[in-house]
Amino acid sequence: MIEPSQWLRTHAEQLGVKQENINSASVDLELGGEVIEVRPNGQRITYHLAPGEEFIFEPGSLYIAHSEEYTRCPTSHAWMLNLKSSTGRKGLNHLHAGWGDPGFEGQVTYELVAHVPVTFRRGQRIVQLVYMRLTEPTAEPYGGQSSHYQGQIGATEARQ
Amino acid sequence: MIEPSQWLRTHAEQLGVKQENINSASVDLELGGEVIEVRPNGQRITYHLAPGEEFIFEPGSLYIAHSEEYTRCPTSHAWMLNLKSSTGRKGLNHLHAGWGDPGFEGQVTYELVAHVPVTFRRGQRIVQLVYMRLTEPTAEPYGGQSSHYQGQIGATEARQ
Amino acid sequence: MIEPSQWLRTHAEQLGVKQENINSASVDLELGGEVIEVRPNGQRITYHLAPGEEFIFEPGSLYIAHSEEYTRCPTSHAWMLNLKSSTGRKGLNHLHAGWGDPGFEGQVTYELVAHVPVTFRRGQRIVQLVYMRLTEPTAEPYGGQSSHYQGQIGATEARQ
Repeated sequence: MIEPSQWLRTHAEQLGVKQENINSASVDLELGGEVIEVRPNGQRITYHLAPGEEFIFEPGSLYIAHSEEYTRCPTSHAWMLNLKSSTGRKGLNHLHAGWGDPGFEGQVTYELVAHVPVTFRRGQRIVQLVYMRLTEPTAEPYGGQSSHYQGQIGATEARQ
Repeated sequence: MIEPSQWLRTHAEQLGVKQENINSASVDLELGGEVIEVRPNGQRITYHLAPGEEFIFEPGSLYIAHSEEYTRCPTSHAWMLNLKSSTGRKGLNHLHAGWGDPGFEGQVTYELVAHVPVTFRRGQRIVQLVYMRLTEPTAEPYGGQSSHYQGQIGATEARQ
Repeated sequence: MIEPSQWLRTHAEQLGVKQENINSASVDLELGGEVIEVRPNGQRITYHLAPGEEFIFEPGSLYIAHSEEYTRCPTSHAWMLNLKSSTGRKGLNHLHAGWGDPGFEGQVTYELVAHVPVTFRRGQRIVQLVYMRLTEPTAEPYGGQSSHYQGQIGATEARQ
C-alpha cells in the first residue's frame, strides 16, 4: 500500500525529505551539486554546481547525478523512484531503476539521459519517491555486507 | 496493495477505462489522436490521427502523445504506468514517468521514444495502468493550486 | 504491499527464483543464454551464450534477452521489474516495461538498450523483481486465451 501526503508530512524529517516537496502520495527530490557525464567512448567529466546554478543535459551522454537530500528508508517500507511528470515531458529520462531498499540511507543516485537538450538548476525538483509499505518489516535490512551504496554521497558510479 | 481484475471491472466506468482492456491486475490504455514530435533541435510538429489511422514512431525524436481515455483516479488510490509488454518488445519506450496522483483526472500524457521504427494505430492499446491502494485516502488530493495537469486533454507539454 | 526478504526466502522455490539472489525486499534475476539484437534498420542477429560467457551491449541497437530463471507468479501477487542499481549506473537501460501478471509463468523477457558499451556475463544478476500483494487473488489469472507469453522460453519478440 502507498503512503499518502499526511504520512509523508509526519515522517518527513525521519525520511530526510522536504515538507515543501510533498505531493498527494509522493515527494519530490531535488538535483544535487555533482554531475558525472559519461560519454559513449567512456570519457568522464565531473561538474560541480553551485546552489541554483543551471546545467544543460545534452543528448548522447549518460549522466550520473544525485539528490540534494540525504534520505533514510525505514525497514517497514521501500520506495520507488519516478521522474516528475514535467521532467519527462521536457525530454529528460531516468533509466528504469530506482528502488529504495528498506534500511537504505544516502543521497539517491540518478542515471539520466536527454532526448533533447534540457536545462535544470541545482535544487530544482527532478524526480519523485513513492513510499510503499511492506507486509512486515524486512528481516534483512539494507546496510549489511554486500550493501555497496549504503551512506553514499554525491554522484556514485557502479561499485560491482 | 494492487487491485485485481474484479475491482477494475466494478470501477471501470468511474475510472474512465474500458472493460475490454482489463487484464489480470492492470488495464490497458489506447493511443489517442494528437502526437507532438519534438526533434533534438527543438522543432515541434503536431500530428492529428483519425480513428484507426497508423503512425510511425521513428528513432531520434521525442514524442508527446496521450490516452484516448479520459481517466479519473479516486483519492483512495494511485496508479503506475507501464508499457504493455508487446510495446516494449517492439522497441517503443516510455520515459521513466507515469504516476497518477490520487484525485487526478484527465487524459494521460505519454512521453515516447523509439529505438527502431514502430507503427501504432490510434485506438491501439499501448500502455497499462496498475492501480495501487493507499493506506488511507490522501488529505491533499491532486487538483489544488499547483496541479498543472488537472483536466488535461490532448498531448500536453511541460507547464513548469 | 511489498513482500520482504523472509517471504521471498519461504517462497523462492515456488517462485522459481534463487535464494542467493534475494535482497531486502526484492530478488535479482540473471541474464540468460539467448540475446536477439535488433538494429535500427530492422536486421536481427541472434546470439547464444555459454554459462559465464561475456556479451557486450553496444549503443544503437535494441536487445531482446531473458532471465536464466523460469519464474511463476501466484494469483495473489504481481511483480514489478526494475534494473539493479549497478546495471543502471553502468549505462544499460531496460525499457519502461516489466509487469508480471498474477498467474504468469515463464522466463522473463528483457528489452535492453545501452548508452555506453556495457559488458555482462550469462548468469550475472542484471534486474530485480519486487513482489506486490493484491487486495485479493485475481478472478482472471494470466494464462487464458489472449495470454501471448505464458510459458515463454528464451528471448521472445512481440506476438501481437
